[in-house]
Amino acid sequence: MDITAIEAAAERLKGHARRTPLLSSPFLDRIAGRRLLVKAECLQHTGSFKFRGAWSALSALDPDTRAKGVIAFSSGNHAQGVAAAARAYGVPAVIVMPADAPEAKVAGTRGLGAEVVLYDRATQDRDALGAQLATERGLTLIKPFDEPLVIAGQGTCGLEIAEQAAEAGVTEADVLVCCGGGGLTSGIALALEARAPGLRVRPAEPEGFDDVKRSLEAGRIERNAALSGNICDAIITPQPGNLTFPILHRLCGPGLAVSEEEALRAMRLAFRHLKIVAEPGGAVALAAALFRPSEISGDAVICTVSGGNVDPAIFARALALPEE
Amino acid sequence: MDITAIEAAAERLKGHARRTPLLSSPFLDRIAGRRLLVKAECLQHTGSFKFRGAWSALSALDPDTRAKGVIAFSSGNHAQGVAAAARAYGVPAVIVMPADAPEAKVAGTRGLGAEVVLYDRATQDRDALGAQLATERGLTLIKPFDEPLVIAGQGTCGLEIAEQAAEAGVTEADVLVCCGGGGLTSGIALALEARAPGLRVRPAEPEGFDDVKRSLEAGRIERNAALSGNICDAIITPQPGNLTFPILHRLCGPGLAVSEEEALRAMRLAFRHLKIVAEPGGAVALAAALFRPSEISGDAVICTVSGGNVDPAIFARALALPEE
Repeated sequence: MDITAIEAAAERLKGHARRTPLLSSPFLDRIAGRRLLVKAECLQHTGSFKFRGAWSALSALDPDTRAKGVIAFSSGNHAQGVAAAARAYGVPAVIVMPADAPEAKVAGTRGLGAEVVLYDRATQDRDALGAQLATERGLTLIKPFDEPLVIAGQGTCGLEIAEQAAEAGVTEADVLVCCGGGGLTSGIALALEARAPGLRVRPAEPEGFDDVKRSLEAGRIERNAALSGNICDAIITPQPGNLTFPILHRLCGPGLAVSEEEALRAMRLAFRHLKIVAEPGGAVALAAALFRPSEISGDAVICTVSGGNVDPAIFARALALPEE
Repeated sequence: MDITAIEAAAERLKGHARRTPLLSSPFLDRIAGRRLLVKAECLQHTGSFKFRGAWSALSALDPDTRAKGVIAFSSGNHAQGVAAAARAYGVPAVIVMPADAPEAKVAGTRGLGAEVVLYDRATQDRDALGAQLATERGLTLIKPFDEPLVIAGQGTCGLEIAEQAAEAGVTEADVLVCCGGGGLTSGIALALEARAPGLRVRPAEPEGFDDVKRSLEAGRIERNAALSGNICDAIITPQPGNLTFPILHRLCGPGLAVSEEEALRAMRLAFRHLKIVAEPGGAVALAAALFRPSEISGDAVICTVSGGNVDPAIFARALALPEE
């Protein structure tokens, strides 16, 4: 994979995905101890960057294949991205979710016109169920990250960062990216390699779920010990992808990991000073930029706020924290 | 005043003010009963459109005058706009605030480098105090709305709306604008008159503080009976301005007024579906777009979210409302 796939995705996304703003605040600069630029990808359609990858994948399908519909496994941001892209194309989307997924996520995905198929985590094999549905109905599976078209779509965020950082006069900086399976992180890394070689991507993750950080240190794919029990659920995956990891390994600097409380504090500061809504998993890169100054070098740092789909009750927890 | 003043302000603001995005969500379209486009001016520097007018005014001062500094009366968004613009120019800003202003607003204004002068509402004459300071130090007063340079600055928001609505394919619609003294509303109205004549501005206000709505109906300036006791405090002024009212009267359609609860519900929906932070006064136009469908005609409606400087406790009240 290289920049040409990302450029092609950017062509397909033109007029469909939003060019999200690169925000800043002197108050956040002060906390970070350097200039801080925030790519507000929570303002993307469906509230996260996932729309980019979904649109990239759907728009590259041949029309007859696409018309039969698409299928995805997700209870979160990828589900909404795929549902919204399918809706815009007027094609069916089937989203397979665990039966215990939060009602708001089920309703949100249905609200975007998708058919939600629920399965029982204890008794049903998700992949077998999905494969059966795909075969019966001729649906195309849209993977959440380990898929070149999806990585290329997320990479369009990196093209924008390269341009917007240059407009802001920043050509040398670490770019901290919220990292789950590595689709966004590897896509941005490929885009910056070609377009802004002075910008170096570094993955940001929740403490205890830092499989990418450890994988980069080890030079081989490491797994997370657990897959739940952290409010940053949107970016917790078992391990980096087979396609994404080699890209991350080749291009990224060391990973950073932050606590749940730091993610909540970053959410509160984004509320206060940027007026954007960040979800916990979407705030880990901002938290690292703000609260890990000694692990970052240079006069400026860039980070993504990758999503804003957060329950009001969790957001209220962030609001209740004391003023920094 | 006409479009040339706004175009000149836009030139001065270039590279300094943000071009804020025009957002949308299919969920909000459904509630509004038509296509809804939201100008997210809460994402402007200092969290409100006020930065535009402040920058417009400061940038038009001759350098020697500007170097002596500026003064403003405000405990809110105008204070922060003036402070940030003065800071960028490296000139002094004095902000006169009531001694009982919320500590967060005092601290926020000081955090932007301004000198805050507190006065006692009961015993001191604010205007006399300000005039004395201005004379002693040679400061230039930056009025919050009844000043052509400020109106021209706010009008740059209207230039962007004209362009962004056209890009979205919307050329005929009501444009609901959160209205206090009328600086933003009159500036946008002037911009749209010249650049998008199919877009008609209509002021939105809190119920019980709808001086502009009543003034438009009466054809002459009407005052508010009270000046406090509503969470939309940021847009409550005694009456429309002497400069702004004739513009509003000539160009605007009928006003709309919404309840405090509707403003809070609009804040929650903006959180949920747009991932932006709206303050109550900044949410009244969105509330009108969502909850007054029968008072609006056409297939599309545009509204401003004019600011996002809200106390966490009030935002938490909005979050605690039931799902729409």
